[in-house]
Amino acid sequence: MKKIRILVTGGTFDKKYDELTGRLSFRDTHIPEMLRLGRCRLDVAVETVMMIDSLELDDHGRGQIVERVRSSDESAIVITHGTDTMVTTARAIADASLSNKTVVLTGAMVPYAFGSSDGLFNLGSALSFVQELPAGVYIAMNGQHFSWDAVRKNTETGCFEQVNSQ
Amino acid sequence: MKKIRILVTGGTFDKKYDELTGRLSFRDTHIPEMLRLGRCRLDVAVETVMMIDSLELDDHGRGQIVERVRSSDESAIVITHGTDTMVTTARAIADASLSNKTVVLTGAMVPYAFGSSDGLFNLGSALSFVQELPAGVYIAMNGQHFSWDAVRKNTETGCFEQVNSQ
Amino acid sequence: MKKIRILVTGGTFDKKYDELTGRLSFRDTHIPEMLRLGRCRLDVAVETVMMIDSLELDDHGRGQIVERVRSSDESAIVITHGTDTMVTTARAIADASLSNKTVVLTGAMVPYAFGSSDGLFNLGSALSFVQELPAGVYIAMNGQHFSWDAVRKNTETGCFEQVNSQ
Amino acid sequence: MKKIRILVTGGTFDKKYDELTGRLSFRDTHIPEMLRLGRCRLDVAVETVMMIDSLELDDHGRGQIVERVRSSDESAIVITHGTDTMVTTARAIADASLSNKTVVLTGAMVPYAFGSSDGLFNLGSALSFVQELPAGVYIAMNGQHFSWDAVRKNTETGCFEQVNSQ
Repeated sequence: MKKIRILVTGGTFDKKYDELTGRLSFRDTHIPEMLRLGRCRLDVAVETVMMIDSLELDDHGRGQIVERVRSSDESAIVITHGTDTMVTTARAIADASLSNKTVVLTGAMVPYAFGSSDGLFNLGSALSFVQELPAGVYIAMNGQHFSWDAVRKNTETGCFEQVNSQ
Repeated sequence: MKKIRILVTGGTFDKKYDELTGRLSFRDTHIPEMLRLGRCRLDVAVETVMMIDSLELDDHGRGQIVERVRSSDESAIVITHGTDTMVTTARAIADASLSNKTVVLTGAMVPYAFGSSDGLFNLGSALSFVQELPAGVYIAMNGQHFSWDAVRKNTETGCFEQVNSQ
Repeated sequence: MKKIRILVTGGTFDKKYDELTGRLSFRDTHIPEMLRLGRCRLDVAVETVMMIDSLELDDHGRGQIVERVRSSDESAIVITHGTDTMVTTARAIADASLSNKTVVLTGAMVPYAFGSSDGLFNLGSALSFVQELPAGVYIAMNGQHFSWDAVRKNTETGCFEQVNSQ
Repeated sequence: MKKIRILVTGGTFDKKYDELTGRLSFRDTHIPEMLRLGRCRLDVAVETVMMIDSLELDDHGRGQIVERVRSSDESAIVITHGTDTMVTTARAIADASLSNKTVVLTGAMVPYAFGSSDGLFNLGSALSFVQELPAGVYIAMNGQHFSWDAVRKNTETGCFEQVNSQ
């Protein structure tokens, strides 16, 4: 069985409701709980790189993510990431020319901790695509996969859509 | 975008709690609601073939499922199915030699209507595998995919596992 | 603060889905988890008397419940109970003439472990009524409370309703 | 059966996650859905007075709430309200000397739309207390009820607690 590494960076996936402040915040990732819920039996290593809203992710942070992709032993890598700048991070990874790895970024429009999240669907999807797609950098959202250079987030619908390769 | 047909046959996926009898039962499928929750944007047609517990599925019922696979225009087909006899149905489809179609059977260990279901994870997984796998008959459970002739359900763990091709 | 005892007898409240058998079953009570979820700060002692479907409750079992009510130090007692024979058990307790106690029976139409349960609403309601009602035996369901001798379960609607005292 | 009016003012109870902005917001109240889930059969009228975070509630807004209490035909009134300034609003209502009404304020620490809310428990509790308590102004949280002049929110624990009457 192919080994898979999940790099956790935060994003809506992992937002939780802080009942004392009444605000959304991050604490621990929900990925291990989600893998249990999905009865996932893949050989998966989960690693938290950071826990932030992707709007706050800068070049330094992106450098850290690229570095973790580069130094991972696994050739199949899923990255959980906020949707707002997911395409930017995908490009940063593609620019690093790690040509022997399949990297799939995914996220959620609604936090997993809330009843109506798309997170579990997207995680199941990303883990499946990463096993089958050839080396490259992809985004898996809405049941689809997109090449890093042919996708954008439609901020009006909240969905990802195909664009011509840039 | 590849067109996908989802054939619904019931199984744990779609069991609901009947509050008047206190028993588990079937009514309508939850698949359209799950696709909405997953913000799925694939070109999917959902068709209910039957709504039964897979332990009650006989040769006649399996024949109906095979026939629906055969007559579908789509070459990518996901079948939601009870886990108890999923392997038997997969074999029946494989025996029908529909060599140009990719057929992925999936299910759930806990009903979707209950809080802690693996259904959404499995649906995301099956819809992703069906887009990428070559023609053939597969089972997608636990984040993995198996060829129809190399899988069994471990009734003690509730998980599917690889066996040597038969 | 008035001390309250919760006697757990099973019923739909505590049914869970057994993923290996595909059937509904009982294991541990969900009451402590529900009290945590409700941020309940009452002085509550939880005691499991039995864990069964109330259709299987016979005179011997009812005798055990009556005995636990009698021997409890607390004068405020909530009993979680299957709805099918809740009225019968309420009568058995009333017949025991424990005239200094307020006893409130409650239950659920849908198991707590399933997403759409009325259990948490009913538990909040029963714990509130038991603090305010005078000594006597009551059923708290559907936001209402009924005297034990003026209530029946309408098996067609699944709701409890007032009848003339018997 | 006593008629009950529920005045909705917003608060954590009704916060939802806005998936396009990634922020918490208000839209419609969840109270009717919660009453359905609780299989509530009380004679309840639901009226939305406002939909705001209680930290943004000023004297003018409080005046509106007091006015709605005063002009309601029902003598039993439940108000859903943010927890941060619930005590202040309770005092404003008490100061208006509406001596023939039982008014119970309640709220939630976690939004109902999120999986782990105390909202349903609190709603069941408030609707029960309002039927039994004598005329006056109360807060129902954590399974308890408090007189308006003998309660504060402990901002460190997020729980309400008894204090000496002021």
